[in-house]
Amino acid sequence: MKESLKKHYEWKGKLEVSARVRTDSREALSLAYTPGVAAPCLAIAEDESLAYELTRKWNTVAVVTDGSAVLGLGNIGPLAGMPVMEGKCVLFREFAGVDAVPVCLATQDTEEIIATVKNISPSYGGINLEDISAPRCFEIERRLKEICDIPVFHDDQHGTAIVLAAALENALKVVKKSISTARLVINGAGSAGIAIADFLLSMGAEDLVVCDRAGVLSADGSVFNPAQVALAARTNPRKVSGGLADAVKGADVFIGVSARDVLSEDMVRSMAKDAVVFAMANPAPEIAPELARKAGARIVATGRSDYPNQINNVLAFPGIFRGALDARASDINDEMQQAAVHALAGLVERPDEENILPQAFDPRVAPTVAAAVKAAAERSGVARIRI
Amino acid sequence: MKESLKKHYEWKGKLEVSARVRTDSREALSLAYTPGVAAPCLAIAEDESLAYELTRKWNTVAVVTDGSAVLGLGNIGPLAGMPVMEGKCVLFREFAGVDAVPVCLATQDTEEIIATVKNISPSYGGINLEDISAPRCFEIERRLKEICDIPVFHDDQHGTAIVLAAALENALKVVKKSISTARLVINGAGSAGIAIADFLLSMGAEDLVVCDRAGVLSADGSVFNPAQVALAARTNPRKVSGGLADAVKGADVFIGVSARDVLSEDMVRSMAKDAVVFAMANPAPEIAPELARKAGARIVATGRSDYPNQINNVLAFPGIFRGALDARASDINDEMQQAAVHALAGLVERPDEENILPQAFDPRVAPTVAAAVKAAAERSGVARIRI
Repeated sequence: MKESLKKHYEWKGKLEVSARVRTDSREALSLAYTPGVAAPCLAIAEDESLAYELTRKWNTVAVVTDGSAVLGLGNIGPLAGMPVMEGKCVLFREFAGVDAVPVCLATQDTEEIIATVKNISPSYGGINLEDISAPRCFEIERRLKEICDIPVFHDDQHGTAIVLAAALENALKVVKKSISTARLVINGAGSAGIAIADFLLSMGAEDLVVCDRAGVLSADGSVFNPAQVALAARTNPRKVSGGLADAVKGADVFIGVSARDVLSEDMVRSMAKDAVVFAMANPAPEIAPELARKAGARIVATGRSDYPNQINNVLAFPGIFRGALDARASDINDEMQQAAVHALAGLVERPDEENILPQAFDPRVAPTVAAAVKAAAERSGVARIRI
Repeated sequence: MKESLKKHYEWKGKLEVSARVRTDSREALSLAYTPGVAAPCLAIAEDESLAYELTRKWNTVAVVTDGSAVLGLGNIGPLAGMPVMEGKCVLFREFAGVDAVPVCLATQDTEEIIATVKNISPSYGGINLEDISAPRCFEIERRLKEICDIPVFHDDQHGTAIVLAAALENALKVVKKSISTARLVINGAGSAGIAIADFLLSMGAEDLVVCDRAGVLSADGSVFNPAQVALAARTNPRKVSGGLADAVKGADVFIGVSARDVLSEDMVRSMAKDAVVFAMANPAPEIAPELARKAGARIVATGRSDYPNQINNVLAFPGIFRGALDARASDINDEMQQAAVHALAGLVERPDEENILPQAFDPRVAPTVAAAVKAAAERSGVARIRI
């Protein structure tokens, strides 16, 4: 932490905007700026799709936050969220060659965020929503997807869900279980937990129980928010009640997006044979991997880079946006997200207990995910490439 | 034009976002991104002014347009405005080392523009408004200056006014006249014309007549918009009436921000001895410089690079924002703008008929303007540099 603060003082910002053209002579200036620039302007005015040819729109993503749920730090506001957004933009550039710019908003009002992002959207080929708290993030994303003609993607939800789903796909291969018959428990019903639940249901999960601090989700609107109440209706077919200890009894898979140390060794012991434990709380997981293994878990994954099986969003979002941009997609739809899961899982040729995901720095990851996402965009009719 | 279109197809965008830090190892990633990045976030959460130290805010400017008045092309919309905005960002980078990003808005509603720009302002150290049509641009700028804690500057108004004022300062030296006694005529009462009028009044002009297509500005609200009506009350002390031909009779200075060929040779002949003609309509001036000289004008300036005395905004805005950013200014106020005028005019040691402004590529321009603007920010109390 101290070293990082020192580095940030040295860096004075992690991004830089550079010119791709010269303006060091009258002639150069008159091509890149007035009077020559009138020509591409008029061309776009006649055919708006040419903005993808004649400007940087085709490669630019806005990383938008309101600073309401930054990392595990909570509602620290837009200015304090900037170092994370700049870091995210650096990852976009370094992992997928995307030009990404931070947009930190001075409002946390749902309607104002929607209007603002819509209004700035023409400059970009995609919008990455980041660190916006639940349940506002659901409506913000849903509405923006409806009104914007470029992809809008809340990475905390779907990026996490996609990497998790790829890890699960390979973990279930190792333990020889199927997603449709496995008992799955998600602990944590914030933006990531809800998105993961939705995603696993769309992948064919049938026995899924979701818990939050107050216990297993139910239709009790005095305890749970509307998104949680809605999810309760689509999960928990065996009508489990109580807390996390009740939910994990006999479970095949535990997925934690919650808080440190909430999963005890006894709870792991109560799980089914060949239990899979994904303890993704950051920086400290729901249970230390050593303890989970000792208590009988066969496969353990965390968000940490110092253990095997790191579930890291950087495996997904760079390639997903690269693919969406390459397709000039109008959306990042379910087909594209499912394609990303299978591409990611498929990069591990022979999954085993300590090897269910590719490494973050595996150079095949972003191009492979991008190609699969682009192809899915074309198949599903949201690509807008000029032929 | 054709060559520029071809180049724009080759370039596929004139800007690029690059990373200033490495993320090619787990260690590098953990410093620039999670978990290390929590440290600068927490530091800013505690002291928001540290955003200027720990992020790129200190050097970043948004170039914001709604595409309603792009160059001389009119209301071509945000996507078609992008090539100009990218070009402007390139100039910010190349002339003053500023990281500038285009923000093209999908709205032309005054209130929505104000709310949107306010909401995105935390990421930037300044806002450059560009190519927004009059009279909306006046209210948009005025309101944003009130509610934003960073400088907001409409370059079409004030950048033009500043360069024009510097040119006038030196031109009046050459013809040995004074701004307080000279008769001045502005033709064109759009955003630039009104801003120039305001600026010249603040510099001490007393005999100023402003014309628009409908003739000399008056209080007739059925003919003129509110900004023009307001300006009528502050100008035209001799109660000139009629059209441009009436206004320029006996005038010492003609300032055109209007349309090609509206100033005839006869009109120039009717002006006072040693007349100064600034014919800035783009790309074709109000009168061809050769004709103006032939008709008796002693000093002629245009917006064109192929004649002497080019009145080019690039002389002002890069240095002005550089100075404002270096001061971490909360505003670009009158003092700073006046300082820019004198710095710019002062760069011409011995002004003469063909030499009233520095050249656009003179490397002294931006640093000299920046230093003067920064000093004026400090003197006038809008600088926020940490000591």
